[in-house]
Amino acid sequence: MIVKLRKNVKVEQIEKLIGFIESLGFEVDCSFGENTTLLGLIGDTSGLDSSIIKSFEAVDEIIRIQEPYKRANRKFHPEDTVVILENGTKIGGGNFCLIAGPCSVESEEQIIEVAKRVKDSGANILRGGAFKPRTSPYSFQGKGEVALKLLLKAKEITGLPIISEIMEIGQLPLFEDVDILQVGARNMQNFDLLKALGKQSKPVLLKRGLSATYEELLMAAEYIMSEGNDNVILCERGIRTFETGVRNTLDITAIPVLHEKTHLPVIVDPSHSSGVSRLVKPLSLASVGASCDGLIIEVHNDPENALCDGNQSLRPDEFDDMARSIFRLKEAMMVV
Amino acid sequence: MIVKLRKNVKVEQIEKLIGFIESLGFEVDCSFGENTTLLGLIGDTSGLDSSIIKSFEAVDEIIRIQEPYKRANRKFHPEDTVVILENGTKIGGGNFCLIAGPCSVESEEQIIEVAKRVKDSGANILRGGAFKPRTSPYSFQGKGEVALKLLLKAKEITGLPIISEIMEIGQLPLFEDVDILQVGARNMQNFDLLKALGKQSKPVLLKRGLSATYEELLMAAEYIMSEGNDNVILCERGIRTFETGVRNTLDITAIPVLHEKTHLPVIVDPSHSSGVSRLVKPLSLASVGASCDGLIIEVHNDPENALCDGNQSLRPDEFDDMARSIFRLKEAMMVV
Amino acid sequence: MIVKLRKNVKVEQIEKLIGFIESLGFEVDCSFGENTTLLGLIGDTSGLDSSIIKSFEAVDEIIRIQEPYKRANRKFHPEDTVVILENGTKIGGGNFCLIAGPCSVESEEQIIEVAKRVKDSGANILRGGAFKPRTSPYSFQGKGEVALKLLLKAKEITGLPIISEIMEIGQLPLFEDVDILQVGARNMQNFDLLKALGKQSKPVLLKRGLSATYEELLMAAEYIMSEGNDNVILCERGIRTFETGVRNTLDITAIPVLHEKTHLPVIVDPSHSSGVSRLVKPLSLASVGASCDGLIIEVHNDPENALCDGNQSLRPDEFDDMARSIFRLKEAMMVV
Amino acid sequence: MIVKLRKNVKVEQIEKLIGFIESLGFEVDCSFGENTTLLGLIGDTSGLDSSIIKSFEAVDEIIRIQEPYKRANRKFHPEDTVVILENGTKIGGGNFCLIAGPCSVESEEQIIEVAKRVKDSGANILRGGAFKPRTSPYSFQGKGEVALKLLLKAKEITGLPIISEIMEIGQLPLFEDVDILQVGARNMQNFDLLKALGKQSKPVLLKRGLSATYEELLMAAEYIMSEGNDNVILCERGIRTFETGVRNTLDITAIPVLHEKTHLPVIVDPSHSSGVSRLVKPLSLASVGASCDGLIIEVHNDPENALCDGNQSLRPDEFDDMARSIFRLKEAMMVV
Repeated sequence: MIVKLRKNVKVEQIEKLIGFIESLGFEVDCSFGENTTLLGLIGDTSGLDSSIIKSFEAVDEIIRIQEPYKRANRKFHPEDTVVILENGTKIGGGNFCLIAGPCSVESEEQIIEVAKRVKDSGANILRGGAFKPRTSPYSFQGKGEVALKLLLKAKEITGLPIISEIMEIGQLPLFEDVDILQVGARNMQNFDLLKALGKQSKPVLLKRGLSATYEELLMAAEYIMSEGNDNVILCERGIRTFETGVRNTLDITAIPVLHEKTHLPVIVDPSHSSGVSRLVKPLSLASVGASCDGLIIEVHNDPENALCDGNQSLRPDEFDDMARSIFRLKEAMMVV
Repeated sequence: MIVKLRKNVKVEQIEKLIGFIESLGFEVDCSFGENTTLLGLIGDTSGLDSSIIKSFEAVDEIIRIQEPYKRANRKFHPEDTVVILENGTKIGGGNFCLIAGPCSVESEEQIIEVAKRVKDSGANILRGGAFKPRTSPYSFQGKGEVALKLLLKAKEITGLPIISEIMEIGQLPLFEDVDILQVGARNMQNFDLLKALGKQSKPVLLKRGLSATYEELLMAAEYIMSEGNDNVILCERGIRTFETGVRNTLDITAIPVLHEKTHLPVIVDPSHSSGVSRLVKPLSLASVGASCDGLIIEVHNDPENALCDGNQSLRPDEFDDMARSIFRLKEAMMVV
Repeated sequence: MIVKLRKNVKVEQIEKLIGFIESLGFEVDCSFGENTTLLGLIGDTSGLDSSIIKSFEAVDEIIRIQEPYKRANRKFHPEDTVVILENGTKIGGGNFCLIAGPCSVESEEQIIEVAKRVKDSGANILRGGAFKPRTSPYSFQGKGEVALKLLLKAKEITGLPIISEIMEIGQLPLFEDVDILQVGARNMQNFDLLKALGKQSKPVLLKRGLSATYEELLMAAEYIMSEGNDNVILCERGIRTFETGVRNTLDITAIPVLHEKTHLPVIVDPSHSSGVSRLVKPLSLASVGASCDGLIIEVHNDPENALCDGNQSLRPDEFDDMARSIFRLKEAMMVV
Repeated sequence: MIVKLRKNVKVEQIEKLIGFIESLGFEVDCSFGENTTLLGLIGDTSGLDSSIIKSFEAVDEIIRIQEPYKRANRKFHPEDTVVILENGTKIGGGNFCLIAGPCSVESEEQIIEVAKRVKDSGANILRGGAFKPRTSPYSFQGKGEVALKLLLKAKEITGLPIISEIMEIGQLPLFEDVDILQVGARNMQNFDLLKALGKQSKPVLLKRGLSATYEELLMAAEYIMSEGNDNVILCERGIRTFETGVRNTLDITAIPVLHEKTHLPVIVDPSHSSGVSRLVKPLSLASVGASCDGLIIEVHNDPENALCDGNQSLRPDEFDDMARSIFRLKEAMMVV
């Protein structure tokens, strides 16, 4: 961490600042240029809250050299994290996951049919919404506990591990038999929820917030990991930009950049990113080209009568066609 | 709501769609152009979830004519909402509020001194953080319940009503004597929290999310209001844009636009928006020029030793100087 | 085009507006709802400037149903445009182009070596900058006319068609033997330049502006096409978003969306998008997965001594490796 | 400038890099930390193109300490620049300018009536468009040379200095009697135009690009100034963000931030920012509150029949009312 001082700062102010920094356990390296004085902090600053230094009057600017996350940082954990589910399914470190299922679980018939169909097409994890975060209080909010039970039934019948979104700490007991707990984009910085998920041991799928930077996403993962749970899967699901011709802008660059910065698996949600079913295939294939560790796709057996997001859901046969393409491309990528 | 159909849609598909819309209680007005067929929905569509219509294969695009919020909508409530606190303090409808206090409550001495000083300068509400949402798990997270108690003591001594941020439903009992419950930007779409706050009667200060549109902010207010609590104060606190020369971009246009769209009071937080204390004054005066209903300002008696955000806090004498300017400008605005 | 009227508008105001619209040659279809009155314009509104209608006091909002571009619109030209260069090279309609070469042409030795190397690797067009748009007036501005001559020499020796950026109308005569004229992102709305390029017949590569919407990009293409030149190639090169972890955010969704909206070829520039050479390969493969019509890549034989953008340039052997991967993926995509 | 090296870099690579930096005339200060090696460049780096250093393999990241602009930098020119027009009108350094007039000059009657009216209301400069940059080639493009002549007539009659937008170098001779040359947002990085304007001596009003950072705006000013013309006025006119409820987001923070960074005058265009006439007054007053050096406002005597942007134009009586408010607020700001 480099601290740039203001011009014309008094010596006592500098001494006071240096004293404070040293009291935190860092060595200080001063560099006096013609126009600028810089202090370099020597030591591990990854856990240091820079704002307490920025408060000093002598300080003009703080420049971070070291990342503020540690457990999620590839520098400290060069090996890929492989998340292993109860049934042995692996995610990350070369293990590709294809997660599919309806936006919301609506009936036993629906979820079981969809589960069977996506399994036949090669999906190895089943998704299904029980609690739905909706922009409007007047929109369908999900079938809640009932939906979770139907999802468990589908798991029992097909053997597919399941993933569903948790929105509130109080819901945790309901998720006991769910394999992966999903944190939605709007809750990416719901820090109390993150801490609670860090205190239990189930894998967490953490979706990137609509305007979250890479660093903020990794800091959110760090919240979970700092409580003891290292089983975090990151999910790029489109960011908010000026472009309104599509619902969100899929940040494809996030895949290789996150792979550099962190050892955690990175998967992509092309359904929510685009919001339109006919864009799901090209975005999925693009994500494979960028070496993502998996995809999470919305599939519905009757999109026209879906209770939510029907327009971004694929029909099972469309998903089947797409899955073939994905696997073919994956194979070509092996020798790439 | 206008529904634009795809080209070359079959008659049965259109009939199916119209049948569905009519089953929801709307009349349908068809318009067949050369290139485009449009369906107009006649009736109150403010509570209609457009995505269930968008799922139909016949549909190309949905164009909303009516806003999707009702209780927060000025069209349905032309008069300004005036939020009245227990001690009679009014906010909105021409009643300007000046909220001030430290980012986080750190000690009895600190909060009481700051409270007295800001009261002397004309502040009529005291702010103070107990639970702090911090990007990093390694940063100071607030003094929690202890801080709330100190805040109550300052209220007792100065008579100032108090506001503090609530981060989680489970904290609600601790806020019994807090006058205004604040929802932070990162929790603006924490829908379970919003619903819980709608079920109690204390006024809620709702901060705009970093990348929330005007409509999303109003929908978040609608979540609270639809549960029965109409005492909502909106707060513009800067949005996230491409510009990194300043922490956030204060969206000054939000003030007049929200005043048109809603009857709720609109206040501004220039401290978090800029993140730099020396920008707080020009942004505060700009907000007054744009006719905001109030300001919320960070003031600390010892910014260099603040446990968080010291660099954006004013000292009491700086705040005093600024408050004078604000009141002078408010006066000039009266005759403007 | 739908015109939404204000509430409580006087009948004379509506009549005045309708009279004006009819004078422009459109039929008007009125729809009176409880809360809203809408006027529908029947006829071809693609060339209609909506702002002249929005000026009327009676008008609240204009809702476009038809796109404001015509020549670039796939609805009016369902077949893919295939741009054919002088030597027969085709771009678009299934014809993939691989454009490669240095950011700036620096010496005869450099450009000829790079040209030979990229040709050997499968590139079919040579790029090379002569006039460089640089953020700083103190940065290297390109070798100008001299560079163009060296580029022509490389064309002569290798037979590769060449592309270079034109920054100003006055430079047009210098580009007589250049095969494709490139318009940079910063000039995407330099309307005088676009018109001048529309009046000549060489193909134009039009880069998307840093914050240009799909519609604005297509309107810029329309500027060129409306003057008579239909040989326009669109280029996605990253947009500006809040994310600063990478230079620009490659908008991968632009590829399938533009393919729907327009018949023009769509290529991708992963070098400028990311600004970092090690991200060029994953972004290139992602673009192939999203079915782009080509790539434009920076290659330099001595990146450490490049006069500009060396850090985003591949070495010839890195490019060769990547080209193999691209062609293998292209092949897999054939059967996808 | 600080250069952060990659991990595990070979000594020869570092030596090569240091040799290169020294060959540019800088001293190098090395700092070896546990995890990171940093090189500090000592000397004036404001004119140094960092990308040529970033190209070296040894380099991980460049961190600028010094701004890359010099002539526009307040550090080197602490005194406010005061731009003085031919008739003695001053802009900047405490001299407030009120620029008003129609979006486009349409007829002699129009421009002369508007000129007289805005002068009576206190405007001291007349604006009027001759060449109009329009998104669509099918929209009205301005009356060109004819419009400039009418504008000159209005100048003659009213004595008001005039400002108009120049879009292309070739138009320069037509602007001989125009007092201020305006560069539009879309041309902010049309570097050839900037250089040409730097080689003449008339004041230039430089509008901030839709997605230009503060630094890029100042670098564009530097382009003009580095050619010898220091008479540059900066203009904030709204930036592009995710918010679509208003045309652009007025970046009010730009005013105090630019005042810190540069000595050049900073004015605001609330008409183009909001795109809606009823938002012009609150945004103007907000800008005065933030201490802008002037405003540029669209006024039309017959907005309903304006050939462009009628919906954002004020009528002369609305402008008169607003001007009174502006002057009253300016006065209150004096004692603030």
